[in-house]
Amino acid sequence: MALIVMKFGGSSVGDAERMKRVARRVIERHREGHQCVVVVSAMGDTTDDLIDLTKQIGAVTPPAREMDMLLSTGEQVSVALLAMTIHTLGEKAVSFTGWQAGIHTEAVHGKARISDIQPGRVRQALDDRNIVIVAGFQGMTEAGEITTLGRGGSDTTAVALAAAIEADVCEIFTDVDGVYSTDPRIVKCARKLNEISYDEMLELANLGAAVLHPRAVEYAKNYKVQLVVRSSFNHNEGTNVKEEAVMEQGIVVRGIAYDKNVARISILGVEEKPGQLAKVFTALAQEQIDVDIIVQSGVTNVSADFSFTVSLSDLDRVLQTLENIRSTVGFREITSENNLVKVSIVGAGMVSTPGVAAKMFETISDLGISILMVSTSEIKTSCVIENEGRLNEVVQALHTAYGLDTDSTVFVGGPADRR
Amino acid sequence: MALIVMKFGGSSVGDAERMKRVARRVIERHREGHQCVVVVSAMGDTTDDLIDLTKQIGAVTPPAREMDMLLSTGEQVSVALLAMTIHTLGEKAVSFTGWQAGIHTEAVHGKARISDIQPGRVRQALDDRNIVIVAGFQGMTEAGEITTLGRGGSDTTAVALAAAIEADVCEIFTDVDGVYSTDPRIVKCARKLNEISYDEMLELANLGAAVLHPRAVEYAKNYKVQLVVRSSFNHNEGTNVKEEAVMEQGIVVRGIAYDKNVARISILGVEEKPGQLAKVFTALAQEQIDVDIIVQSGVTNVSADFSFTVSLSDLDRVLQTLENIRSTVGFREITSENNLVKVSIVGAGMVSTPGVAAKMFETISDLGISILMVSTSEIKTSCVIENEGRLNEVVQALHTAYGLDTDSTVFVGGPADRR
Repeated sequence: MALIVMKFGGSSVGDAERMKRVARRVIERHREGHQCVVVVSAMGDTTDDLIDLTKQIGAVTPPAREMDMLLSTGEQVSVALLAMTIHTLGEKAVSFTGWQAGIHTEAVHGKARISDIQPGRVRQALDDRNIVIVAGFQGMTEAGEITTLGRGGSDTTAVALAAAIEADVCEIFTDVDGVYSTDPRIVKCARKLNEISYDEMLELANLGAAVLHPRAVEYAKNYKVQLVVRSSFNHNEGTNVKEEAVMEQGIVVRGIAYDKNVARISILGVEEKPGQLAKVFTALAQEQIDVDIIVQSGVTNVSADFSFTVSLSDLDRVLQTLENIRSTVGFREITSENNLVKVSIVGAGMVSTPGVAAKMFETISDLGISILMVSTSEIKTSCVIENEGRLNEVVQALHTAYGLDTDSTVFVGGPADRR
Repeated sequence: MALIVMKFGGSSVGDAERMKRVARRVIERHREGHQCVVVVSAMGDTTDDLIDLTKQIGAVTPPAREMDMLLSTGEQVSVALLAMTIHTLGEKAVSFTGWQAGIHTEAVHGKARISDIQPGRVRQALDDRNIVIVAGFQGMTEAGEITTLGRGGSDTTAVALAAAIEADVCEIFTDVDGVYSTDPRIVKCARKLNEISYDEMLELANLGAAVLHPRAVEYAKNYKVQLVVRSSFNHNEGTNVKEEAVMEQGIVVRGIAYDKNVARISILGVEEKPGQLAKVFTALAQEQIDVDIIVQSGVTNVSADFSFTVSLSDLDRVLQTLENIRSTVGFREITSENNLVKVSIVGAGMVSTPGVAAKMFETISDLGISILMVSTSEIKTSCVIENEGRLNEVVQALHTAYGLDTDSTVFVGGPADRR
């Protein structure tokens, strides 16, 4: 008998039929003799519908606290309905909100981090032979305020809860069969990975693979939670995410990720004096803007140019922030580009295998495409290129170059659910 | 500066425009220098929509605990949106769920009673110059389970909260101008009452006047909460509900109520031995069935007949319960009628004014209508009559007979909101 946490996203419980399918899946596990804790997100479009209500009342920047009060109802509806569905199908189930499940977070609204889980009620309900349903994406501060965890929050709830109750495994159900070597919507012969290491998964997640949220992977890595990503539509084996993953013979790259949400900003003619870079990036950090790749160039003894990338969605705020500090830093010009993509290869064995990055540059060059920026770590190499509608071609070429193509093509559902 | 509790029903916050009107109304009070606590119900059809979801998943008798988890989200959405609306209009507001507002209830789902209110957070938020918005209709048990209060629950939340924070007044906003001498949809020249006593209001509420829930009135009476029932559409004065209400010169009846939800059951040929009646009514009480008027007749030394009334909606359960005890009690026959109405006159001065009931019987008889059952208390007289489509005529005749008609006719909105 195992203790299992199962997480289902909003699209998996999007309507009554899907809700019943999830219920049957959980009951199947329960009847095999396992103890089951189920984490669910809000049903389908619920969150969008709630946000729409705020627009109807004319709230342009509603207080984050009230937004959390509002949005957290979405998961509460899901858990109650799933508990009822399971009950209707003949098993005992009890639902909990985040606060009832003992999920405590920092006092931040809209993107709180879990600080602590006190799973007493969850454990008690399991001991009473219940299937336990917990609302994902939400928690409570020490002061009793309802918080939400931000994007990917339900994945994080599931993993953190699995750690807190020392579950044997945390299964993340999604609309694809597992983690793929690359986006199967782009590369038809992408391969489903049987295993992947936490570190590789973390890079892939950070680099744009939507199947798991980086924060959830980080949590799983820190607490050594055994993760499985699998389909809610079939019983195929899925992908195990674990400490050390076995690499197939002759393969050094595990996966290829891409990110279209990239903008590059260049600051030209920055006066050459100590602390200039620090001023710029401190100002951006204060605005909660994450900077990705930074490249310095055109250095003379009086001035320098440098470029960096940010999320495309942050571009306007970056430009505004830079204008605000123009007088204190001193530079000639700011330019920006928004028609870019970042392509990355990820593999734990890269660091000990020479020539892996070189093959990437060569493959991209052979397509006649210029590489604008490069960034590397022990287990990944990223290239920023212009997005001239040739992204799919680049990803396919890299997939082939690193020997990742399989013979079979894969079925692909809708976009993965990230709440 | 006063401390005011304001309660708005679901139809008052049914859409964005209405929500804004409520927000403006509250802000007006706040800017006059008052401290405001606002209790709201779920928006318009929210509850029905949520119940519809349970039908979609095929839940015939969903667990009451999960039903409360589900339905309590309706008010949580309302309070968050109202807080945002007030914020958008330039004032500080903070919303609380029932449990956040410290509303503790018994451990019963679907129709819990408030056991205790710990208003610390509400008080603190008021001290911080916030308008405080509290979800009506819900609370939390000692074990941390979410409960709902059943019909009229939001009225009760408002009154109980007013008692707990020692508010100067509790204003119940509705879609009519106040409490009327009778249903203004039936009697065009019904008069709005400036004052009514708790006892009279309790009788009227119990006898079918939908404007206030009996439990809320009882709470107000017990804790001496100054209640005002008034319109959310205008600034007219409303009706004060208080300990002692002044009666106009020459008027002894305050109001006339009617109830169409009446069924009569007759048990014929009950064996005459001690404890027979007790057996019947104990069995009904165990099924949570409220019995109203009881009349015994046809008594011989071997058997008796008796009749009693119940809510029409309980009729099937009553008949089933009686069948179950037929063998232990011993009676010849059960008959039932469901085409009845109960008409009542209410007035605190009735007990000291002879002939009030007689005038009622005479007025009904003059219309050629038979009185089937009669029930009296110190401040009310009720008659059960057949509902032959002449109810309006009876109510109008009584209204005239007791000198209650005014010259003006009243505007009437939709049915009052009872959640």
